[in-house]
Order: sequence, then C-alpha cells, then structure tokens
Amino acid sequence: MSLVIIGTIAFDAVETPFGKTDKIIGGAATYAGIAASYLNKDVKLVAVVGEDFGVDNLNIIKNKGIDTSGVQVNKGEKTFFWSGKYHTDMNSRDTLVTDLNVLADFDPILPESYQDCEYILLGNLTPQIQLKTLERLKNTPKLVVLDTMNFWMDVALEDLKNVLKRVDILTINDSEARQLSGEFSLVKAAEIILAMGPSYLIIKKGEHGALLFGEGQIFSAPALPLAEVFDPTGAGDSFAGGLLGYLASVKTVNFNNIKNAIIYGSALASFCVEKFGIERLANLTQEDIQARLRAFVALSSFDIKA
Amino acid sequence: MSLVIIGTIAFDAVETPFGKTDKIIGGAATYAGIAASYLNKDVKLVAVVGEDFGVDNLNIIKNKGIDTSGVQVNKGEKTFFWSGKYHTDMNSRDTLVTDLNVLADFDPILPESYQDCEYILLGNLTPQIQLKTLERLKNTPKLVVLDTMNFWMDVALEDLKNVLKRVDILTINDSEARQLSGEFSLVKAAEIILAMGPSYLIIKKGEHGALLFGEGQIFSAPALPLAEVFDPTGAGDSFAGGLLGYLASVKTVNFNNIKNAIIYGSALASFCVEKFGIERLANLTQEDIQARLRAFVALSSFDIKA
Repeated sequence: MSLVIIGTIAFDAVETPFGKTDKIIGGAATYAGIAASYLNKDVKLVAVVGEDFGVDNLNIIKNKGIDTSGVQVNKGEKTFFWSGKYHTDMNSRDTLVTDLNVLADFDPILPESYQDCEYILLGNLTPQIQLKTLERLKNTPKLVVLDTMNFWMDVALEDLKNVLKRVDILTINDSEARQLSGEFSLVKAAEIILAMGPSYLIIKKGEHGALLFGEGQIFSAPALPLAEVFDPTGAGDSFAGGLLGYLASVKTVNFNNIKNAIIYGSALASFCVEKFGIERLANLTQEDIQARLRAFVALSSFDIKA
Repeated sequence: MSLVIIGTIAFDAVETPFGKTDKIIGGAATYAGIAASYLNKDVKLVAVVGEDFGVDNLNIIKNKGIDTSGVQVNKGEKTFFWSGKYHTDMNSRDTLVTDLNVLADFDPILPESYQDCEYILLGNLTPQIQLKTLERLKNTPKLVVLDTMNFWMDVALEDLKNVLKRVDILTINDSEARQLSGEFSLVKAAEIILAMGPSYLIIKKGEHGALLFGEGQIFSAPALPLAEVFDPTGAGDSFAGGLLGYLASVKTVNFNNIKNAIIYGSALASFCVEKFGIERLANLTQEDIQARLRAFVALSSFDIKA
C-alpha cells in the first residue's frame, strides 16, 4: 500500500511584501510530498527535474523519507522555473517568469515499485499528463485526488473534463469553481461540478478556509488567522498533500474522514506560509502539528445543543 | 432587565438579481429587533419614523412582542428612505437614494420604562447619537454592542473613537476593520481595534462567516452556504440582534457565550437573506431556528482529538 504524488519539482523565485528569494526549491510535488510525509511513511513522488537540480536538493526531499525513484533527472536539461510576485493582499500574484524546461516534454514514469499505489494525488499539471498517469497504473487506486487550476480550464477544458470522470476528490479554489461551473453560488457550482465525476469537491478559499461538498452534505473548515502570511507559495499543495496523507493513514474515505483530512491539510498549509518556500514546512515536529491541530479545534468549536 | 436596540426604522426599495421591491419596511432597528425577539421577550426599540410609516407597519413590529414606546412618530414628516441595487456577487451594492427625512434631526428619547436596560445595541447611526443614547441611560448597561460602518470612519472618526471607549463588543466587516486599524492582516487589525476600547471585536465576512477576537483568543464562525442569497439587506442587523438577544438570554458575557451568540446571530441572518426585506425573518418558528442551528453544528463540526 503506498501513496503516490505526481506534480512539479521546481525552482521558484518569489517576491512578497516581506522580501524576495533567489532560486529556491518549490513545486507542487515537493510541497505535497513533504506535507504527506508527516502523516504517512510510504510517500512516492513522480516528477522530472533537470541536471541543475542537484543531488543536495533531491536529498532534502529524500531525507523526509520520500521515495524519489519516480523522479526523472534529465541530463543536460534545466529544471522547471517559476518566478512570481505577490501583492499586499497575498491572494493575487503576478507571474514574472515561467520556464517550462524539462516540464515541456514530461512523460511520467511509474516504477514497478509504485504499482501497489492505493492513494494518488494528481497535482496541478496538464490534464493529459494526469490522465496518462492513471492509465499507467495497472490497478485503479482506492482514492484519486486531483488538483488543477484556471489555466487548464482555459486551454484544455475537454481533457480536464475527461480526467474529472475518474477522480474521487477535486480540489480547486472558489474562482475556479465558478469558472468550471458557470455558477456564482458555490452551492450551485458544487452541484454542477459533482455531476462531472468527482464524489467530493473541496473549494479552497485561502484566508477564508475551505468548503467540502459530497454525500449531500457541506462542511465549512476555518483557516487559521495569521498575523503575517509570509509566502503563500505551496499552501494549496501542502493542503492537498496533508489531505491525502491523512486519508491514506485512516484508510477509509468518507465524508467524516475527509472533514478531518481537510483540517490536517489546513494545519500543514498554515505552517507552509510562515516562511519562504519549504523552510518551515520541511522542519516540523509531530508536536508542532499536534499543537496546530489543537489550535484549529479551539478556533472552530462552540457549544450549542440544538 | 431589558434589551434596548437603537437604530433606524426605514422604508427600503431594493433591487437584486432576483427582482426588485417597492417601498418595504427596513432599517437596522427593525431587523435587529425582530431577530432579538425570538431569543428574548423584553426587546425595546429606540427609533424615529415619519407620519407616513403608518400604524399597520408599526404593528408588524409590535406584533413580534417588541416595545415601541421609544419609537417617535414625527407628524407631517417622512420616514427615512434608502434605495439600493445589489450586484451579482451580492457583496457590493450601489446606493441609489438616501433620503434622511426624519433621521436628519433624530434626537433619541429613552422612556423611563427603558431605564432598566442591561443589554444595548447601538445600531448603525452617527457616533454622536450612539454616544447620546448611552448618556441618557442613568446606569451603565452590562453590555454595549456597537455596529457602525465605513461612512462614519470617513466623516466622524474622532466621535466614533470616543464612543468606542464605552463599547464592549464592536461588530464591523473586514474592510471596515482594515480601514479603522490601517492594517491589512485581520489579526493585527483586531489588536489595534481592541486597544481602542472594545473588549471583543467581531469581524463580519459575509459569505465567509465571522471572526471573534477577545480574551487573547480567536473564534472562526462559518456562514451557511446558500444556493441563493435573495436579498442581503438587513443581514448584519439581524446578526447583531440575534447576538444581543442570545447574550441577554444567557446573562453572562464571556468569550464562550459570545461564540454561541455569533452562531445564533448567523442563523438568524441566514434566514433574513432568503427573501426580500423582513418577509422571511419576521415569520420564523422556534423549530425553524433550532433546525438552522443544527445545520450550523453539522456544517462546522469535525472529530479531531489532538
């Protein structure tokens, strides 16, 4: 039984109101993998990097106990590079540079040792690659979580709709849910999106938390109010990784467990934004995580018996 | 022991994507009073209307068991009139008409029978009138809740700061909290605003719920996701009325009780927006309210023991 995450491993250069970085390690698979590693001992990544990524950087990931045998290292090529600048509200950002590099021809390889995969996160990539990944698994996983973004709705909507038919949980943000459904009301949007295939829809609302729709129910998860959001990069990926890691650890996928998984994912995402890149996320103790979970319980509990 | 609410009683004409109304009963005191009336049997209003308001309209309020002996009826004058149009997102609106009419010279009268007031809501009015109301009470109430808006921060900031010194709970929305504090982070904004006087700050975030700050703690309350928000007018006032009504019924004002009060207020506000004006809010059964409270419990509960 293992948990597979496919996504990008990248170099990022980030500018926020609090400062800016040179090239640092980033990418959806990096954040999601590290987040999941705290909740699951058997995390396997599928990704591609260039020769410039270097052994030291790959070791940062390996040292979290993550299996990188599905990470291709392309000789003579360069790692995917993204550079962006966040505005004061931290909800909007400008992309300054996107150098696809190795990502342009990414053809995912799933080693034989990955074939026992029961839980998979299809991180934000082209829907074609997300679908190809599922097709390269001999068995259908017990749980398929898919993360995507507005860009793929703009340029590859039909492909996205095809992969959605094979997905159990879809995670997108509120404006993406509105775009995908054509409905402003998130309740109506969820109805339409769930009819496209997923059994559960998680709508991420950044500082406003997240909504879960499925089994005819709705769950509203809070976000931890933070004095400073230092760098939001990777928060959504950390959320998805924590979500999957928790579900793989409890082994039963239902509405109640997904509610808890969202809190675990939110807790890990709340660490991610405290420093640049993976600096905070990669250096957590189990007690840090437990304390943060207690903060979420305190934040949202009340005592009404109706 | 009684609960006093001062605010506007108005005629509103509202246009939303779902339709438009002729002149209907509105006003902060109307909404707050009706909401509070479900949780408390001793609600007293302070307000002013014109002769055009009519006995039938006043009876709608009286029939909820609300004491209107503090509502002045100014002969030969016209009731405050507001007309607005909501945009698709229902969070922004254009004010089309504001005819102050009787409100221009409003000088609140607190009848002798109101002097046992222990719980008071100073609804959205000029800070000068809010202060004058407190000064006309012989005893300091046990709880003062103040609602205000960005307009008073623009034109009467010093007066507002004066009345804030005498307030226990302040309710404003997120953009108002940012304006009043000069801080974007709501955590930092709360710190600054609490230093201005209130012991507790409630930041209303519309469809994203509300945050409570005080006693060094934070509580995040969800909003009920609705398929259709028919008319948001009065939601904030219904929230404040429900909040005060609950606190007056439990008689102890502390962080835990304010958390519950926010859920009661949110439940009443969630009814308010389902129809135009007070149509839905004024026609609730106790079982309707209990069912809605159960929906809030289901919406936000999860089972993590950290």
